[in-house]
Amino acid sequence: MRHPRIHCITNVVAQNFSANVLLALDCIPSMTVSPEEVGSFVTGAQALLINLGTFDAGRREAIMSATEAAARAGIPWVLDPVLVDRSPSRAAFARELLTRRPAVLRLNDAELGVLSGGSASPDAARSYAVHNHVVVALSGEIDVITDGLRVTAISNGHALMTKVTAMGCAASAVVASCLAVEADAVLASTAALTILGIAGEVAGEKAAGPGTFAVAIIDALASIDGPMLASRARLSS
Amino acid sequence: MRHPRIHCITNVVAQNFSANVLLALDCIPSMTVSPEEVGSFVTGAQALLINLGTFDAGRREAIMSATEAAARAGIPWVLDPVLVDRSPSRAAFARELLTRRPAVLRLNDAELGVLSGGSASPDAARSYAVHNHVVVALSGEIDVITDGLRVTAISNGHALMTKVTAMGCAASAVVASCLAVEADAVLASTAALTILGIAGEVAGEKAAGPGTFAVAIIDALASIDGPMLASRARLSS
Amino acid sequence: MRHPRIHCITNVVAQNFSANVLLALDCIPSMTVSPEEVGSFVTGAQALLINLGTFDAGRREAIMSATEAAARAGIPWVLDPVLVDRSPSRAAFARELLTRRPAVLRLNDAELGVLSGGSASPDAARSYAVHNHVVVALSGEIDVITDGLRVTAISNGHALMTKVTAMGCAASAVVASCLAVEADAVLASTAALTILGIAGEVAGEKAAGPGTFAVAIIDALASIDGPMLASRARLSS
Repeated sequence: MRHPRIHCITNVVAQNFSANVLLALDCIPSMTVSPEEVGSFVTGAQALLINLGTFDAGRREAIMSATEAAARAGIPWVLDPVLVDRSPSRAAFARELLTRRPAVLRLNDAELGVLSGGSASPDAARSYAVHNHVVVALSGEIDVITDGLRVTAISNGHALMTKVTAMGCAASAVVASCLAVEADAVLASTAALTILGIAGEVAGEKAAGPGTFAVAIIDALASIDGPMLASRARLSS
Repeated sequence: MRHPRIHCITNVVAQNFSANVLLALDCIPSMTVSPEEVGSFVTGAQALLINLGTFDAGRREAIMSATEAAARAGIPWVLDPVLVDRSPSRAAFARELLTRRPAVLRLNDAELGVLSGGSASPDAARSYAVHNHVVVALSGEIDVITDGLRVTAISNGHALMTKVTAMGCAASAVVASCLAVEADAVLASTAALTILGIAGEVAGEKAAGPGTFAVAIIDALASIDGPMLASRARLSS
Repeated sequence: MRHPRIHCITNVVAQNFSANVLLALDCIPSMTVSPEEVGSFVTGAQALLINLGTFDAGRREAIMSATEAAARAGIPWVLDPVLVDRSPSRAAFARELLTRRPAVLRLNDAELGVLSGGSASPDAARSYAVHNHVVVALSGEIDVITDGLRVTAISNGHALMTKVTAMGCAASAVVASCLAVEADAVLASTAALTILGIAGEVAGEKAAGPGTFAVAIIDALASIDGPMLASRARLSS
């Protein structure tokens, strides 16, 4: 499908950057969090992103409506449990959302540590994926994607990615964009984080600091093609 | 007037970019959506933008207060009915707002199609303008401005303008900035979309992709002057 | 302390830019405004920013929780009373917050004029600081920092800083970041506005307009070091 529609319930810090990331990838983003209209936006989309970075009663209601609409329409969705390691109420809500069967849980070590009640090793990710029937996409210096059976490690990326706000949120948006065109959530997550990592490397070659990097990564995302992806991907399983 | 104040009730994705667009044009933007203070911000402004891209109960109340304050004080305003083609409740609210007499309705083909209940040709725009006593500013590959009697077509612009989020919202903010200094809403809208289109062309000459384009168009807006406008405008009527 | 955590209750226009400014300075920003979780974010932070640029009932409740948590935990905070000169209800709320003892009040001439009920000269700032037991950090062409006894003037900066939205809000965030590592609020405020002013000068040497300037100042903030600060600071007392 060309120009898939991706609906995002994401935090206010990330909305603009995530929308530009999705547009660079030839997707059509929508961002409404209004409970009364979110259902019709989700039903008209090919994938959904739920990000907990802004956490208020209205958004929680919107998330419930959106995930119900996604379940009814068979639309895959990604859960990004931002900063559950800093907020017990977010962690509880994230656990509740996991029972609603997101296709992918995209998060970092600290967040997985809280949700799994333990460490955040690749083994812990695999075990968590099995028990929660979800593909775990664990971001870090090396990204790990697993459904419990398959495990893929991605070593693409650039250090400046940690110096731009909402980069993790944007990663989850890219995962959603890949889910819109690839039903296998392991493959979609692997493609997404590889694309973003390579774009980060390309941006890093041009950037003079985190400001120019945040701009250059959008350019890079818009210019990535199949041959570049094939030649630069550093995957292992 | 130098440094006109433009009050914007606009969506959260567009707020930062629109504020920087207005600052580049030597305007003073304000963005509050708090119902209790929006009246005093509008009364102290020279033009008002109402954008429906974030659609919640608080903003609807703020929009009612703001448009009442604008009517009392004789302050012109622009309505941007973002994505009414995706949300029936937004479309209904936009129709109600049109009875409050915005000076300009700035939108795209899909949005006009829903509001007019038909197609989005220049003829449909003209007819819609007459019946709703509003100047229609229809954005597209060729922009069309009409009050029903006069019709102007603008062919300035650049393909990357569709790859930056909130570009349409920013276009509506530029229309508001021109309404602050030009009472004829056809002329103001024509000037606004011509300025933005030329800035897009200038940015397109420098950009390596949508990221650098979004930055370069702000630089271009800050540097446009009368001679550049006169030499690059591509208008027909 | 390396990587201090700075919690920001700031306006939606400023959130993304402020987060990137803090990341460039090796801080860890958090931005939640949810009343139920703001306390735990503040308690885990080393400094707090309260910015009134978005002014709604939820944020006011969050501000009350956040400043109470800061008082209990002895965490210093900065108050940025954005646009109190345009909104009487904001001015009243800012006066109430001043009784809760922020370490620093960062604002511009017009805002100080309203709060002090008079002019915004360095003398007025000094008198206001004494009577309100607060360090006043007055931004302008020349910044003035005073606790009533000491007065420091900073002449660093660049004209384009007034053409980028949320630059004042970002200045307050930088003040908060310096308060996290320097208990003397006069020194922290002086360091913060000097760092930002020098970053503005560096960015101004590279920028082609306000768009590239906003990007370049992030790069500059990430690259400033002690020798550059020492050689470029223009302070007088």
